[in-house]
Amino acid sequence: MANVTALPRNEDGIASVLGVLKQQFGERFQTGASVREQHGHTTTWLTNQSPDAVVFPKSQDDVAAIIKVCATHKVPVIPFGTGTSLEGHVNAPAGGISVDVSEMNAIVSVHPDDLSCVVQPGVTREQLNTYLRDKGLFFPIDPGANASLGGMASTNASGTNAVRYGTMKDNVLAVTAVMANGDVIRTAQRAKKSSAGYDLTRLMVGSEGTLGLITEITLKLQGIPEAISSARCVFPSVDAACQTVMQVIQYGIPVARIELLDAVQVRACNAYSKLDLPEQPLLLLEFHGSDASVLEQAEMFGAIAEEHGGSGYTSTTSTEERNKLWQARHDAYWATLQLRPGASGISTDVCVPISRLADCVNAARARLEEEKFLSPIVGHVGDGNFHCLLLIDEQNEDEMTRAAAFVSWLNELAISMDGTCTGEHGIGQGKMAYLSKELGQETVDMMVMIKRALDPDNIMNPGKIIAV
Amino acid sequence: MANVTALPRNEDGIASVLGVLKQQFGERFQTGASVREQHGHTTTWLTNQSPDAVVFPKSQDDVAAIIKVCATHKVPVIPFGTGTSLEGHVNAPAGGISVDVSEMNAIVSVHPDDLSCVVQPGVTREQLNTYLRDKGLFFPIDPGANASLGGMASTNASGTNAVRYGTMKDNVLAVTAVMANGDVIRTAQRAKKSSAGYDLTRLMVGSEGTLGLITEITLKLQGIPEAISSARCVFPSVDAACQTVMQVIQYGIPVARIELLDAVQVRACNAYSKLDLPEQPLLLLEFHGSDASVLEQAEMFGAIAEEHGGSGYTSTTSTEERNKLWQARHDAYWATLQLRPGASGISTDVCVPISRLADCVNAARARLEEEKFLSPIVGHVGDGNFHCLLLIDEQNEDEMTRAAAFVSWLNELAISMDGTCTGEHGIGQGKMAYLSKELGQETVDMMVMIKRALDPDNIMNPGKIIAV
Repeated sequence: MANVTALPRNEDGIASVLGVLKQQFGERFQTGASVREQHGHTTTWLTNQSPDAVVFPKSQDDVAAIIKVCATHKVPVIPFGTGTSLEGHVNAPAGGISVDVSEMNAIVSVHPDDLSCVVQPGVTREQLNTYLRDKGLFFPIDPGANASLGGMASTNASGTNAVRYGTMKDNVLAVTAVMANGDVIRTAQRAKKSSAGYDLTRLMVGSEGTLGLITEITLKLQGIPEAISSARCVFPSVDAACQTVMQVIQYGIPVARIELLDAVQVRACNAYSKLDLPEQPLLLLEFHGSDASVLEQAEMFGAIAEEHGGSGYTSTTSTEERNKLWQARHDAYWATLQLRPGASGISTDVCVPISRLADCVNAARARLEEEKFLSPIVGHVGDGNFHCLLLIDEQNEDEMTRAAAFVSWLNELAISMDGTCTGEHGIGQGKMAYLSKELGQETVDMMVMIKRALDPDNIMNPGKIIAV
Repeated sequence: MANVTALPRNEDGIASVLGVLKQQFGERFQTGASVREQHGHTTTWLTNQSPDAVVFPKSQDDVAAIIKVCATHKVPVIPFGTGTSLEGHVNAPAGGISVDVSEMNAIVSVHPDDLSCVVQPGVTREQLNTYLRDKGLFFPIDPGANASLGGMASTNASGTNAVRYGTMKDNVLAVTAVMANGDVIRTAQRAKKSSAGYDLTRLMVGSEGTLGLITEITLKLQGIPEAISSARCVFPSVDAACQTVMQVIQYGIPVARIELLDAVQVRACNAYSKLDLPEQPLLLLEFHGSDASVLEQAEMFGAIAEEHGGSGYTSTTSTEERNKLWQARHDAYWATLQLRPGASGISTDVCVPISRLADCVNAARARLEEEKFLSPIVGHVGDGNFHCLLLIDEQNEDEMTRAAAFVSWLNELAISMDGTCTGEHGIGQGKMAYLSKELGQETVDMMVMIKRALDPDNIMNPGKIIAV
């Protein structure tokens, strides 16, 4: 495991808060070792730092009560959705209380005429989409994991559909949150646009629980398209695939998804999902629109792909075939882990201007080969965002050291290309070292000033994003 | 004129700053009465509050030097683009220095492969689009006025194309800004998405110059569509037009523009722009896409409009006819002023969830009739945003009082419909009273905390958005 910094614990404060919350929450307050460990970080290579207790609020009033007690005693509050984040966001480096919002999972209201809805933070994206299906609506953001919408908002998640529908920032209209001082704020009304004061909606989205705990989210929805078709196309090289993507975006073809899987990833998916895709760089696509528009998009894509040596191009509107293809894409993480049983996966998350995508992917691939790392590359390439998933034996110190060096090198390469170390996973604990390299110390200082102003005692998810 | 609050002046500080800037900037520093008055607010009913001097920086270093001098002496800095904002944004209620960025008008770089560019804040949207035309690119945000991009970012402007392309918030990738303490920050890299820390980009966009002065903006661009067609359709009532709009949005027809002009507005446009449109509620539309897609969109719209009693539906791809129609739309403000020569126009700016649009427009129309105000209604109705432009004799105290009461009533009506008092003009001085009604005092308090943290001496555009 990669070490993460422990922060000073306020033992007296923690003891007091444990006493108060136990009394207030009874069985919805737990201190068992396994529950605590489940609520520390378990899905990444970062060391687990368990909270001192886990509390399960059922309402905004519960959350406000918890935060007020923690504020009084200056004890950390760590928001917890489903625990699928990747950069140590739910770790408790200074101990404190994990606030698990899984029981705050009500879909509060759906407004079909306005294409919007209001949900509690524990609602997962699959839960929401199942609920919306017979209304002809869907929520497009799809980070792969069945994450909670509160967690997705907190890390500004995106995923495969972002090339067309944007990220959480583009799809959250408003949030209600309990702030560090116990105040409840609502950042915006439900109108589609507003110029009313500072954009606290987008300040909260992506703030990783470090400013407040989101208790309600107003989301934009989309109508389920009249037609959906999927397509796949193999390429002689990653470079050819990237060139194709660049041209598709420049031509303004409104692709709903355009995903790159490199040859290693295709091999893993074939084995895991019982497919027989050619083991070459592959683009998976999805087109949304009217029947005619979907057909036109597929044809335009085909023509561009052919220019770049694409072959085996097939598209389908069959729901069954479509689902099979996208299930394989979603299972890519699990498929990859099977390539080296017992190994841990370390995911990178760089995002660069699309003109630099091929350069960045090629450089990453070359260094992976050089270092003899087993690692597929998979990417939301329409946005210039891709992930390497390094398979590492955590017991092997040399591998761990070289993996850390690779992650660092790739982050800095992306930054040097005017890109970011994190397209969608967030900073958490894992990427704190890169934030000032990316944005400059003066910019990070502004973030620190905001954090200190809104959370002077640093109780909200301390040790994430910025050192305060 | 409607009174605006004057704030205490720091006379000693102002005198010192005038001396220093005069020496540093020579002829680019002006204190003549007419220049100062031009840089106070002149296009609205709010009283002009002129700055003590106007300075014309040519570079970010100039801006940093100005802000540092003003910070040292605690003197207000009021950013100025083209002066086309509508809520007193460029007034100087505590005196101070207007920083006119019109000479910072370089297009720094264009990245056609990435569909992005970097501009200085004084570049106007027409200047940018003229420059981009032969590259096959355009910047879609169009608030009507030929505003500066720095000003558009500062007020989170939008306009006719926002229904398809979003607002400034959706189209600014990053800004560089000089903050109140003189630090220069860059809020993001040029990658299309990022989850790297607090979203300072969107905090700066819409902050109306109250946190810092934007010196560089990275914008998303769009490819000029293969085909563009315009259409118009008249309706028996505003309600029928609004119902049509609602259905168009729900069906997901990707209209690029969908604008409502009520009968009064059509009459004004006919007279001013020498048109012969039927003087009934009118929708003006624009479709962008491939030839086939534009045709399909126009047909789908026609079918929906017909269901709601739309008639006289015509669409055209002729550039000349298209320009004539949209020029008339853009001249609506001037056309309206001609309805009552000598009168002043007072623009409202509410935006509501689209399901409430017809109710809100109808209520506004009814009260305008009741009060016998001459006022067209024009709206970016695909977003639920519309403007009444009340024609008022500013010398007539009764009219002024009743106009103020109307504006107040409409803002509160929109807020009661889960909407906002400002869809795109911003809060400035004119709407400060409504911000806490809209978002609650706790939310406004958070904005105050952020303002105090980043600008403790309140030198950046004081007296706008929030009282500090």
